[in-house]
Amino acid sequence: MDKVLTLDSINPNMIKIEYAVRGPIVERALQIEKELRNGDKKSFGEVVKCNIGDCHATGQKCITFVRQVTALATFPHLLENKSFPEDTKSRAKDLLAACSGSSVGSYSHSLGLEVVRRDVSKYIHQRDGIESNWENIFLACGATEAVKMLLEMISTTGRDSERAGVMIPIPQYPLYSATNSEYNNFQINYYLDESDNWSLSADELKRALTSVKGQCIPKAIVIINPGNPTGQVLPQKCMEDIIKFAVDNRLMLIADEVYQQNVYQPDKYPWASFKKVLSNMGPSYSGKLELASLMSCSKGYMGECGYRGGYCELLNFDPAVQAQLYKALSARLCPPLMGQVALDAIVNPPRPGEPSYSLFVKERDDVLSALKDKADITYSALNSMPNMSCNPVQGAMYAFPRIHLPPKAIQEAK
Amino acid sequence: MDKVLTLDSINPNMIKIEYAVRGPIVERALQIEKELRNGDKKSFGEVVKCNIGDCHATGQKCITFVRQVTALATFPHLLENKSFPEDTKSRAKDLLAACSGSSVGSYSHSLGLEVVRRDVSKYIHQRDGIESNWENIFLACGATEAVKMLLEMISTTGRDSERAGVMIPIPQYPLYSATNSEYNNFQINYYLDESDNWSLSADELKRALTSVKGQCIPKAIVIINPGNPTGQVLPQKCMEDIIKFAVDNRLMLIADEVYQQNVYQPDKYPWASFKKVLSNMGPSYSGKLELASLMSCSKGYMGECGYRGGYCELLNFDPAVQAQLYKALSARLCPPLMGQVALDAIVNPPRPGEPSYSLFVKERDDVLSALKDKADITYSALNSMPNMSCNPVQGAMYAFPRIHLPPKAIQEAK
Repeated sequence: MDKVLTLDSINPNMIKIEYAVRGPIVERALQIEKELRNGDKKSFGEVVKCNIGDCHATGQKCITFVRQVTALATFPHLLENKSFPEDTKSRAKDLLAACSGSSVGSYSHSLGLEVVRRDVSKYIHQRDGIESNWENIFLACGATEAVKMLLEMISTTGRDSERAGVMIPIPQYPLYSATNSEYNNFQINYYLDESDNWSLSADELKRALTSVKGQCIPKAIVIINPGNPTGQVLPQKCMEDIIKFAVDNRLMLIADEVYQQNVYQPDKYPWASFKKVLSNMGPSYSGKLELASLMSCSKGYMGECGYRGGYCELLNFDPAVQAQLYKALSARLCPPLMGQVALDAIVNPPRPGEPSYSLFVKERDDVLSALKDKADITYSALNSMPNMSCNPVQGAMYAFPRIHLPPKAIQEAK
Repeated sequence: MDKVLTLDSINPNMIKIEYAVRGPIVERALQIEKELRNGDKKSFGEVVKCNIGDCHATGQKCITFVRQVTALATFPHLLENKSFPEDTKSRAKDLLAACSGSSVGSYSHSLGLEVVRRDVSKYIHQRDGIESNWENIFLACGATEAVKMLLEMISTTGRDSERAGVMIPIPQYPLYSATNSEYNNFQINYYLDESDNWSLSADELKRALTSVKGQCIPKAIVIINPGNPTGQVLPQKCMEDIIKFAVDNRLMLIADEVYQQNVYQPDKYPWASFKKVLSNMGPSYSGKLELASLMSCSKGYMGECGYRGGYCELLNFDPAVQAQLYKALSARLCPPLMGQVALDAIVNPPRPGEPSYSLFVKERDDVLSALKDKADITYSALNSMPNMSCNPVQGAMYAFPRIHLPPKAIQEAK
């Protein structure tokens, strides 16, 4: 008998989703890994998969402070254990006191524990020097969930030219194209300029938007800074151009800033949040841009992908729209409590004078310095290969090299 | 200046979502709580919110074994701590060995760690006495995420009569109506029979389906067993009728079985999974029903809502459809690792002879017996009140009483 659900009867948008993380290169890597396990002799002994920013998978160590706080919150009997520093205990106690029934096994508020949202707002305040209202922050199951909710929220039920247009960078992080497919948004590609270190120009944004005129209702632009998979840190002037473009063209800005702590030459290529740049542009812009900024436990120096912790800060949103988004989030009950606890340990790390401080600083700086070294090694290695070139990795965790195919190879392929 | 996003420009399906957990009764409870905090004198000293199955929030203790395994996986230094029993350590070691880089900070496979999926399949096998294929099991961020993915998958992009129809019980758990709104599915209400202990009849299912003829494309039926919010355990005969109805009318069955461990009179009202009942009906049915069965860390005796752990087992799905669902799940990367670890501790609990066994059994049975007592107290108390009546609570965590309004009150309201 025929199935009820077939490719002809399920959601066609789901079928349209493409997710590159399982592309042919990954398939080949898995195959090589299997061959090695079967005893095949090769000039190397293992496969290190760097197709995704999964630091712990490739040997990066966890930050002791983060794990101590989460272990204490998990099993409060450990609060009596003398090997845990007092600051990890006081953090865990504060978090447990905020949990219903003093247990991470209870549901939190659907937007996350108030204490964590407040600590996130303090972190943002300290980062930017600008006030942050904790009620504009919601916690999510990784930044991924926040991206999905935002792109779902702006989608329309319209067809053809009534679809919501979302501008995304090319090269991009495939979550954006996949999620646009999932919610039937119209993807508007703008191209990063490889010759200018993956920067982007107002001209290119205009070109991209003009090219889809009449084909959709443009509603949002996604900027990934530091860039994934391109590793650039955007100059402030470029960010100002983007903000002007978004305001002038009535686009909400989704700022994927999850690599904000992965900036390898801060003196030469400093990173600033879109919120800060916007604020510096004065009242003719600062109140006009609907900005959603994303951050995650998964990147930075902590690399805690498995916890699925993240937050989104909303700026200048219509309160009625924000209320709708918050209502929709309530149906999925709450973000994972351990992700919330880990996020709190990250936005509220040990302070000078606290017992965990020196170990924390050492571990954090060791990771960031190792990532910087790897960024340099990757850059040099790629550029030393014949017919390969690559921009410097200023931030994030990725390099996006160019392969210069010899004319004869191109001829052959044709 | 006008906002880009307004109630007129965002996704209308999101606006249609209704989520009852923040209804007027909860608002009044929060108000009373505030009054108590402000020192108002009342005949009671605290508010216990039972509008949601959040056991730890109302004082239920966590299961030591679950928390020890998750604490060890979180902070593996504790593997050297002598106060943790050996079986918790061997569980944690096995789970860590399955994590990339031996860290819960890495991403897992997007469907969950293979070892956890295998342990889930063993749990199901032991429960039902029927083989379970681990590759048909995917892990999720609570059963909630699985429900959302299933209802999204069956949704169509069609309008009006082309919308996917989903049969749901009334009274229901509001996740189902909210998610149907979110994905533009057509909600088909079938009514549980209060006079027959919230059971349901094939006649009622037929009536419900017939009543929407031509208005949608019926695709799925949701059954919650044990019932939420109605507390019944369905008799086997009733489940067989449902299966026949679903097969005859070409509906996929979503079996919300998250309360499978909350069965308070198993001798009188035994619970069986839909998978088992289906299997017992023989080949004329067993291969024909597309069945998705849901389970969660949040209910049962463990009540670990905050971990957001859950699984879904798919049966008889078209492999091409299953592949699409799995692809869509890959875009959100993976379920929370701590939820996966907690789920593993639940489906693979201490065995007789292991050091944690006796404490585990005591804690589990204490919780289940307390829940049974509360079910009985609730039933008796509601039935002892004037103008109130309530069915016995055979399972789950809820009672759904009837309030008999006096004729004069009805008159007055009119």
